[in-house]
Amino acid sequence: MDKNSVGIVTPQVYTFGETDEDALKLDCGKKLGPVNICYETYGTLNSDASNAILITHALSGNAHVAGYNSEDDEKPGWWDEMVGPGKYIDTDKYFVVCSNTIGGCSGSTGPRSINPKTGQRYNMNFPVITIADMIRAQHRLMQHLDISKWLCVLGGSMGGMQVFEWAVNYPEAVSSVCAIATTSRISPQGIAFNWVGRESIMSDPNWNKGEYEECIPENGLATARMLAHITYLSEESMDNKFGRNLQENDNYSFDFQGDFAVESYLKYQGNRFVGRFDANSYLYITRAIDYFDISEKAGGDLSEALKDVTMPLMMVSFTSDWLFPPTQSQDVVKAMLKNGMNVTYCNIDSSYGHDSFLLEVDALGSLLSNFIRNSFMEVRNG
Amino acid sequence: MDKNSVGIVTPQVYTFGETDEDALKLDCGKKLGPVNICYETYGTLNSDASNAILITHALSGNAHVAGYNSEDDEKPGWWDEMVGPGKYIDTDKYFVVCSNTIGGCSGSTGPRSINPKTGQRYNMNFPVITIADMIRAQHRLMQHLDISKWLCVLGGSMGGMQVFEWAVNYPEAVSSVCAIATTSRISPQGIAFNWVGRESIMSDPNWNKGEYEECIPENGLATARMLAHITYLSEESMDNKFGRNLQENDNYSFDFQGDFAVESYLKYQGNRFVGRFDANSYLYITRAIDYFDISEKAGGDLSEALKDVTMPLMMVSFTSDWLFPPTQSQDVVKAMLKNGMNVTYCNIDSSYGHDSFLLEVDALGSLLSNFIRNSFMEVRNG
Repeated sequence: MDKNSVGIVTPQVYTFGETDEDALKLDCGKKLGPVNICYETYGTLNSDASNAILITHALSGNAHVAGYNSEDDEKPGWWDEMVGPGKYIDTDKYFVVCSNTIGGCSGSTGPRSINPKTGQRYNMNFPVITIADMIRAQHRLMQHLDISKWLCVLGGSMGGMQVFEWAVNYPEAVSSVCAIATTSRISPQGIAFNWVGRESIMSDPNWNKGEYEECIPENGLATARMLAHITYLSEESMDNKFGRNLQENDNYSFDFQGDFAVESYLKYQGNRFVGRFDANSYLYITRAIDYFDISEKAGGDLSEALKDVTMPLMMVSFTSDWLFPPTQSQDVVKAMLKNGMNVTYCNIDSSYGHDSFLLEVDALGSLLSNFIRNSFMEVRNG
Repeated sequence: MDKNSVGIVTPQVYTFGETDEDALKLDCGKKLGPVNICYETYGTLNSDASNAILITHALSGNAHVAGYNSEDDEKPGWWDEMVGPGKYIDTDKYFVVCSNTIGGCSGSTGPRSINPKTGQRYNMNFPVITIADMIRAQHRLMQHLDISKWLCVLGGSMGGMQVFEWAVNYPEAVSSVCAIATTSRISPQGIAFNWVGRESIMSDPNWNKGEYEECIPENGLATARMLAHITYLSEESMDNKFGRNLQENDNYSFDFQGDFAVESYLKYQGNRFVGRFDANSYLYITRAIDYFDISEKAGGDLSEALKDVTMPLMMVSFTSDWLFPPTQSQDVVKAMLKNGMNVTYCNIDSSYGHDSFLLEVDALGSLLSNFIRNSFMEVRNG
């Protein structure tokens, strides 16, 4: 274990919404309760609770950002390089929180949870949730943790969408926000990719209208993941990483098994995903992403939608990200500038595509570290 | 019927390779025979056979370029706007030929054809073919038609790959070539998209290792098509055409049925494709595309690979095509210039993405018309 690791971390679960009154009111009009929120924390909350940072995770992420859940863990959390003592998000200084989103499959209530009213899994009876619903649940966790204001809320990809929902719906509860490799609204191309991924899952006979047990819709989920994975890379990074290299043979094998290195890679990624993610969660979370448009309530006017975003906002995009291209970040920057608000923007030059937000740790980390330090100074200077 | 239509056209079939000696020798080392080639012709071959143009089709195309196969046909051929009397490719002047590629499902021998040796469909016993194999079969058709030199060979997308194979392997048989919205080699991203599409088909239980009869792998094929369709459009054209518009309701329906206009569109495209294309052909033709790299025999050196391409070559790309982006056309142009060869290049400004080659009829048609006329003048002036 690296000496700058946060070490062994125990995931915690906060439960709320056990009464109808306390249940989570969702955008779809339904209520969800009881709700479990699985979360992890790193570092120590200071006496005036002014050093709390919320990290929001991406589609297939979870609460386990840093460190290890047990001595036997082979891999640390998904952003371990970023978060730890002395690291860019320094747990010697800050109290860092991350929670698994509702709808997920890593400890928080999602479609595979048991519905206490029926004693059965929700499966497709789980209500369709939105990114805003995820934030409502996180806000409940915040109250539970006795934090009245996050020093910073930050996240990449779907995490960045959550950042926008925090900034717009709870402006009084955030001192600063940072949205990374994301968008203010999902494009029709994004909706289309999600649609095809879900079609792949829902047409797998093992999916069985969501009621699978022993036989899970492995093929459908793997195919959905492989497709999504292409959108996370860039043409350039695929050229650099794989080119037209063959995986095993010197010559084409003239079959359909997967001659090319890129095919083996996708197959590996698809299979690995099936072992760690749930098919119904994939449906619900991609649907929440489809429905994300922060400008919607303002009739598509992004400046109007962001008018209450008075806290400092940092946008970070990556030059080769074609899933959420820099132009979509720049739309947010323009809207913030139009409002005369405090916005910082950086378009990091990287060939890694959308995945850059996980790979460009140093470039992104320096930005985050400075941005958070400035926010902390502002907060302390009142 | 428009007065500039070529009118009613009867597809013809040329059969060769009935003996082992006459069979088509394939890149994979196997032989294919007998081979049926389904083709259509428009216009009249002149006395010295100097006005013959070969059009090569894209992945899901066929020999039916223009006109109608019967009085009842509701739609004309796939490039009817381009080809006809007085049209850009003028059948009053030129004799135009198009044949369905081998491996296809529109009249030429493919995986669903009956293997005369077994009396059964080939299905997955069909040999894996290459783009070069398609050209070898077209070359046999050329001999059958008593044409010794094409005035021009032209095509878009996979048709453009065939154009390169003609130029490189039969330079003496072509007076000029035009490759449209294509590439000299499939990128790993292209291979990856094809892989996911095939995974979708091959994991459909109705696919049954290719041995389907009554129940065809509709879901898998539709999903593959929907995915491919996304790569044929551009982000901009999807924004313009669909945006985040809902198909039927005023508000989100919070379900998985397909709220968005773009989802309905994809569903429609997927279903329509299932009615007109075969799943096994989809596997074989995408595999042929994967294996396409015109520079391969020259160890990746494109200039070296094109060294015998001494006839005029025109490359046309489209600014918003991200499946075969303009940079890939420009690589060919640079290689031709390095060889000191005659190359014309146009990057047409269009928002339609890869589909531009079918939609930008006027911009592309003017270029083609001039290019072909110049070639014809060259040929006549000897």
